[in-house]
Amino acid sequence: MAATKGEFALINWIRRQSTFGKNVIVGIGDDAAALRPPKNGAVLLTTDTILEGVHFNFKTVTPFQAGWKAIASAVSDIAAMGGVPEYAVVAVVLPKDASMKFARRLYEGMRSVADRCGVAIVGGDVTSWRGKLAVNVSVFGKVDGRPITRLGAKVGDAIFVTGDLGGSVRERHVEFLPRTREALALRKAVRLHAMIDVSDGLAADLRHIVEESGVGAILYEEAIPVSRDAEILARRGGKSAVEHALGDGEDFELLFTVSNRDAGRLLSGPPFRTRLSRIGEITARGFYIKKKTGGRVRLNPSGYEHFK
Amino acid sequence: MAATKGEFALINWIRRQSTFGKNVIVGIGDDAAALRPPKNGAVLLTTDTILEGVHFNFKTVTPFQAGWKAIASAVSDIAAMGGVPEYAVVAVVLPKDASMKFARRLYEGMRSVADRCGVAIVGGDVTSWRGKLAVNVSVFGKVDGRPITRLGAKVGDAIFVTGDLGGSVRERHVEFLPRTREALALRKAVRLHAMIDVSDGLAADLRHIVEESGVGAILYEEAIPVSRDAEILARRGGKSAVEHALGDGEDFELLFTVSNRDAGRLLSGPPFRTRLSRIGEITARGFYIKKKTGGRVRLNPSGYEHFK
Repeated sequence: MAATKGEFALINWIRRQSTFGKNVIVGIGDDAAALRPPKNGAVLLTTDTILEGVHFNFKTVTPFQAGWKAIASAVSDIAAMGGVPEYAVVAVVLPKDASMKFARRLYEGMRSVADRCGVAIVGGDVTSWRGKLAVNVSVFGKVDGRPITRLGAKVGDAIFVTGDLGGSVRERHVEFLPRTREALALRKAVRLHAMIDVSDGLAADLRHIVEESGVGAILYEEAIPVSRDAEILARRGGKSAVEHALGDGEDFELLFTVSNRDAGRLLSGPPFRTRLSRIGEITARGFYIKKKTGGRVRLNPSGYEHFK
Repeated sequence: MAATKGEFALINWIRRQSTFGKNVIVGIGDDAAALRPPKNGAVLLTTDTILEGVHFNFKTVTPFQAGWKAIASAVSDIAAMGGVPEYAVVAVVLPKDASMKFARRLYEGMRSVADRCGVAIVGGDVTSWRGKLAVNVSVFGKVDGRPITRLGAKVGDAIFVTGDLGGSVRERHVEFLPRTREALALRKAVRLHAMIDVSDGLAADLRHIVEESGVGAILYEEAIPVSRDAEILARRGGKSAVEHALGDGEDFELLFTVSNRDAGRLLSGPPFRTRLSRIGEITARGFYIKKKTGGRVRLNPSGYEHFK
């Protein structure tokens, strides 16, 4: 799209920061990037937008962190498919009054996490308007063999999640490392039946797996890895720590199901140091949580169905 | 990213409209789309954003047309590389008060032009905020052999442009057909040295070719294909029709250079019915326009350097 002088200056500055490997035939600065496709397997393509005032605000988050989050949350979707992220194109909509310094810090945040994840930023689009910041990131990845989808959970499967859940809004929702290495290690260690990243919240995202796979699920309340942040939020009242863990979202952890046999393997020899919790079981139907105090209650996508 | 109930409903409605060919392993509704990569050549990747109040406004443009423009302007970038567009992922940021009907019309506009261009919409992201509409489209295309870039214009090359230029803001900037067929026909007919689509405006986009290729250019004023819209705007005063053609932008026509020999071929047997104009020549240095009245003046990216 038509670009202004300031937009061109920013793009030229970004070009000067960029060097590419041999698989990038055309990088930043043309109408499109040109990339050598993978020889085997499939290409993965995902797009994700983060919005000022919705997914973060500049009272608590720096421009660097906003850029980081934009890349990281899109890369997380590639991890959730069991893939390797390779390239990103970035579309930034800047507020009219944004300075060049602001734009550079945003890009530096993007680059920091992109570099860590092995992702090359090969193209983009810069526009500005009398509105808030919006950053869209599309990531191109590859997957050898079968992509891991939300469909494929089987009755009797064990449900696992990486890391700790809940209260990410306090801090973890910005400068997080997407679980790309964990996803690949899991792929290598076991046969993943279904996988998703926790963006909407544990209950909502498990619901996606359950609905796509045509099954049910029961979670064990006592096994849910509740984060310290969730506990801190709970002390401030409103919801319990477990409820934060079930409903908060933006944890960007991997939620997946495997056979009972593979579950045993994962627990006896975890393929990485990141916390790994067996939190429930895939059932034929229904969507429940088994309470610590005994008995089970129905879950809804934002947590408990009947909050008491 | 976390989605609301209305966002889920929209995504589910879109899923029901979608059927995919055998090269789409995973389509809409998972963390990422999975696609069979092309066996030969390169993959093209581009991203483009259109913003309410910047690239269009709803006083003159319908939601259907806004959706159309979002896809068409991204596809135009693939055409400009001499490629074939194949897949799109779409990120829509809706105003909070947007209705389901509005969102559906937007999608229908996207689908109309995507279907016409052979592009499958394989994924997306829907968010909403207290701001205006923003639509980002990333397109995945392929190119057999060499992608056509902005770099490659040679001294002595003839400069060509498709269609008519200027005044697209009156109407043509929304429901246009990207020049994908013309780009492929040109590729087949001649050896394209450099190519770009006219989004910033003829003078600005030719400048991109000139700068990337390290050459100069001279345009022939009398040969510039001035649109009827440019003439209508000129009658209202301010700028001449040629100035509109040079500076307006959003024409989404193909601007390219070929050898003198290939220029002769194109003029004696054009490979399509779309108007094709030889508008200038690549020179060693400088950036000029040869006036109808004789003499030459310097060009700047928005038109004439010295407007008299």
